[in-house]
Amino acid sequence: MAFEQEALTSEEVSRLKEAGRLAKGDIIKMTRLAGSGHPGGSMSSLDMYLVVFSQANLGGATRDRIVVSHGHTSPGVYAALARLGHLPVDEVIAFFRKAGSPFEGHVVRGIPFIDWSTGNLGQGLSAGCGFALAAKLRKEHGHVYVLMSDGEQAKGQVSEARRFAKKYCLGNITVLIDYNRIQISGCVDDVMPVNIVQNYLADGWDVVEVDGHNVAEIYAALRRVRQSENPTCILAHTVIGKGVPFMEGKAGYHGSPLNEKEYPQALAVLGIEDDLQRYREQRKGTWHWQPVKSEAESVSSLVTGTPFTYSDADGLDNRSAFGKALKDLADKNIPEGRLISAFDCDLASSVKTSDFCKCSPDQFFQCGVQEHNAATIAGALSVAGIVTFFADFGVFALDETYNQHRLNDINKTNLKVVATHVGLDVGQDGKTHQCIDYIGLTRNLYHFKTIVPADTNQVDRVTRYVAATNGNFLIGTGRSKWPVILDEKGMPFFANGYRFSYGSMDVVREGTDAAIITYGGMLSRALSIRERLLKDGVSLKVVNMVCVTEVDEKAMAGLLGLKAIFTYEDHNPATGIMPPIGYYLLRHGYQGKVESFGVKDYGKSGDTEELLQAEKLDIGSMVEAMRAALK
Amino acid sequence: MAFEQEALTSEEVSRLKEAGRLAKGDIIKMTRLAGSGHPGGSMSSLDMYLVVFSQANLGGATRDRIVVSHGHTSPGVYAALARLGHLPVDEVIAFFRKAGSPFEGHVVRGIPFIDWSTGNLGQGLSAGCGFALAAKLRKEHGHVYVLMSDGEQAKGQVSEARRFAKKYCLGNITVLIDYNRIQISGCVDDVMPVNIVQNYLADGWDVVEVDGHNVAEIYAALRRVRQSENPTCILAHTVIGKGVPFMEGKAGYHGSPLNEKEYPQALAVLGIEDDLQRYREQRKGTWHWQPVKSEAESVSSLVTGTPFTYSDADGLDNRSAFGKALKDLADKNIPEGRLISAFDCDLASSVKTSDFCKCSPDQFFQCGVQEHNAATIAGALSVAGIVTFFADFGVFALDETYNQHRLNDINKTNLKVVATHVGLDVGQDGKTHQCIDYIGLTRNLYHFKTIVPADTNQVDRVTRYVAATNGNFLIGTGRSKWPVILDEKGMPFFANGYRFSYGSMDVVREGTDAAIITYGGMLSRALSIRERLLKDGVSLKVVNMVCVTEVDEKAMAGLLGLKAIFTYEDHNPATGIMPPIGYYLLRHGYQGKVESFGVKDYGKSGDTEELLQAEKLDIGSMVEAMRAALK
Repeated sequence: MAFEQEALTSEEVSRLKEAGRLAKGDIIKMTRLAGSGHPGGSMSSLDMYLVVFSQANLGGATRDRIVVSHGHTSPGVYAALARLGHLPVDEVIAFFRKAGSPFEGHVVRGIPFIDWSTGNLGQGLSAGCGFALAAKLRKEHGHVYVLMSDGEQAKGQVSEARRFAKKYCLGNITVLIDYNRIQISGCVDDVMPVNIVQNYLADGWDVVEVDGHNVAEIYAALRRVRQSENPTCILAHTVIGKGVPFMEGKAGYHGSPLNEKEYPQALAVLGIEDDLQRYREQRKGTWHWQPVKSEAESVSSLVTGTPFTYSDADGLDNRSAFGKALKDLADKNIPEGRLISAFDCDLASSVKTSDFCKCSPDQFFQCGVQEHNAATIAGALSVAGIVTFFADFGVFALDETYNQHRLNDINKTNLKVVATHVGLDVGQDGKTHQCIDYIGLTRNLYHFKTIVPADTNQVDRVTRYVAATNGNFLIGTGRSKWPVILDEKGMPFFANGYRFSYGSMDVVREGTDAAIITYGGMLSRALSIRERLLKDGVSLKVVNMVCVTEVDEKAMAGLLGLKAIFTYEDHNPATGIMPPIGYYLLRHGYQGKVESFGVKDYGKSGDTEELLQAEKLDIGSMVEAMRAALK
Repeated sequence: MAFEQEALTSEEVSRLKEAGRLAKGDIIKMTRLAGSGHPGGSMSSLDMYLVVFSQANLGGATRDRIVVSHGHTSPGVYAALARLGHLPVDEVIAFFRKAGSPFEGHVVRGIPFIDWSTGNLGQGLSAGCGFALAAKLRKEHGHVYVLMSDGEQAKGQVSEARRFAKKYCLGNITVLIDYNRIQISGCVDDVMPVNIVQNYLADGWDVVEVDGHNVAEIYAALRRVRQSENPTCILAHTVIGKGVPFMEGKAGYHGSPLNEKEYPQALAVLGIEDDLQRYREQRKGTWHWQPVKSEAESVSSLVTGTPFTYSDADGLDNRSAFGKALKDLADKNIPEGRLISAFDCDLASSVKTSDFCKCSPDQFFQCGVQEHNAATIAGALSVAGIVTFFADFGVFALDETYNQHRLNDINKTNLKVVATHVGLDVGQDGKTHQCIDYIGLTRNLYHFKTIVPADTNQVDRVTRYVAATNGNFLIGTGRSKWPVILDEKGMPFFANGYRFSYGSMDVVREGTDAAIITYGGMLSRALSIRERLLKDGVSLKVVNMVCVTEVDEKAMAGLLGLKAIFTYEDHNPATGIMPPIGYYLLRHGYQGKVESFGVKDYGKSGDTEELLQAEKLDIGSMVEAMRAALK
């Protein structure tokens, strides 16, 4: 157990003080050598790093977790870890901010005890909530320490995370704020005044104030809060550039290394020898220390159960099919301790996670209207080895939270985002709720896989697939009921023999003249378009691009001989499925006609059929347009 | 002046009460007819709407402004406006949520006195801050009323907006919270507890509590706060579904119209005749009422001054060229009362708005680490007729704030976003700071124009152009110094005769074998690549696609005869400039080789040249790759 002893002994205090003196020299050297970095905050946070890294329980699976939200203080983190024996001092100094080295400008997972890659301020406390939840769900004793800057307290996501921690009684989370009162543009009270103490108290937290440069006092506070039932904020009064008088309290040293004149002065003050030349030489070579593997923690492989098969008689919409599959996964796994969790932002009844909530209330997290916080917590929880679903309307699941998911993706999370209202099929809520850009957004996220199933049977199978497959996925569904897709014999296409395999396109109908490539709710319309064109003697191949960002080269090869290829989607056509398809066709010398049909501007407020007509994407308009194109 | 009289007379009170009774009937009818909508909150907010719409000063340019942040209460807004004579009652009921009608599911600009289109919760107070700022900058007396729900108080952006309003002494803003304690998933204290009063007090606001169904009390409170120096929150205790006993306090009526059985009962309770059949007939036809034009308010056209021309001797980076152009625009316009404002999120020294801040401190707004709030305030201010720049690192200017800009775009703002750190050229901060998706993001925003100038001269001209051109623009610049682009005579290419025209590609060098299409910091590298390939006897055409989302058909036509076309960018190649170029080439039957070069994964932390080498995007690697492709 950590923090068991009453207080730090005087020997421990002086050992930490000496480590701090040396670490400050390291910070000044590595930033000077790299020619960039953030020495000031690294020096004001350093004493907290030394106490937490030396005293917290950082071994084993039930270890404490650490999130450094102000990741730009990486020199302080590396130096503290190095002087405590967890990193090689020489390599930290020599290779800081060298491309490819593990010692990046902002801390990343893989560095010892760093559980979350950060860099964009204000998200760290949400990540900490995710780790604290993981510990509670697993009934572990691990405590979570979130180290933050004062400047980022202005960020709204921090207040969202505070409320979540309070609501879910995360007494196992402690925030340490480096309250040096300086941010890039000057004094925090001039840049954007934040009443930090009152903000934390108003949200139900405890607040303790300490001298952030008194390691014994920091230890005592951490020991006290370790027993608290309530989340606690330790406001640590610090001095930026602490230890080098001419740096102390100066905003200029937030993000700038020391110059030629200042550098030797600082080392002299600290009583540290200037051996930079040695490191300058070493930097020309390469490093030997390697980070630990930073994939999401191994997930106890889930039992995916037997897929459900639906017919139109079931009168189900795709989001409900997701909800039923999710509940089935919960029933089959949670009782056996294979955990699945689901996050909601006050839309459970619409995104169909209510049944999951009823059957697995302890794994269901209601975040209220706090999408940024929910997206980050869900990501962190998924990285801690718990399969996590975040279901929301498309514009909240992705548009509002794009950057949170970018950071999740960088953190190699194992998150399953379910965007239940995408395209124009979102009810009559209007343009602010129409998510007609989701493919254009997720395509930017290198490790996110986006899947838009065409009917309830495909949704069921895709939901089970993503639950059991490591990595980040986005599943898109519409709001209304779509027909069950049938094969030519009239049997459900996505049942019986069908098995979802990521990246494959489904050739739903063969055709010899032209092809229409589509997905989601437009597939059933494409089949009707095919029937109508058949009367003109046009044989239209219908392809379901269920994995909307992937080109299935085998399936595409089968299209190269056709007269025309059309893409058809209720999405912005400039960012939908045409880009990868067009690039493939261009590189394969396709000579036929190509046309992309999609939504050309922000939509109106009305029902789906009215909206499709307004965009000339309804069956009748499409038949006319395609006839004209095929003339 | 509004709220001059001591109190509402008893006649006025009873007139508003009667209007309320009728309006509740309208709300119940329109939601029933549309088959969707939000009756519950519309009825709990209604009395506030009636007082504000009837008493505020809503005429003329110096009018009060109103933001309805919980836009889903649109039935309440429409009914209140109609019963006060500002909208035709019949059309509001008949055409609510019919595609194309002005009476959308969420309120939009163009409806009388509705100054901001809303729908995604939590952004309204930021928009209100923008309008309050506009009034202060113009020394007008207009007051801003922001009506909000209680559920959205959990949203972090609300806390950001509170702090901004306090910092900038926006005593001319009043928040009215519909505190009915019910949101979609149930009681607000169960969904996500928020200590609303303490939150507003902690951020320095005044708080007044009133009975939200007592119009006299609401009037009295609004009259009092009108004189206050401090922003005030009026917490209005209300009842969801107020006026129809069986609806009162029930979460079920948040987002569901009444069914066949409930509907006549509700009308009976209200003593209102059921004439829905008439409206059902009318709905088959069309509406006559037309919304007022909702473009950004006419901007006093700016004087753009004389462009600056730079040479390499000036040693300037592109962000500094932007900063100098912005300061020049400020010098030439602000003293004459043609207002320009700039927003910062604690990065002024890096994004080069410090000079503007020094010369125009009253037009410079330091938001601290609050990007969501800054993006929305800047958008609203720009809509109020003040040319507004929001300069930030790319990942904050766009990735973090994508959805705020989507709402800005829907609101037809006149915002100039300057993303000073895009691509890999962001210093050694690492992957969280590398903005390699910005083209992929803005391409989704139908009315955003994205421009990435190649050197300081082009930046200067583009900055002046966007300042004087109505609409939303994003200008991208790197961090480091790029060479000034020269023509074949060695003169600055983007000076003298050059004039920026949106949508045009710049053919910087002619070529007869192949073409490389690029932009920004890669253009100078493309010119070096051209020199190197010339030695192999390859004549490479170099095209600058400065408007990265636009295909210049005339310029592209000149490429169709070439053997190969390459795109070259420090951006995700799947979402960069290839999609529109590829689509054009495909539709024009291009038969040559096509290759897109870009960044294939999240980057490392190092300097730009190291990173380009790691991605094989440096000049040497590109020459090799293109040689291979041209074999």
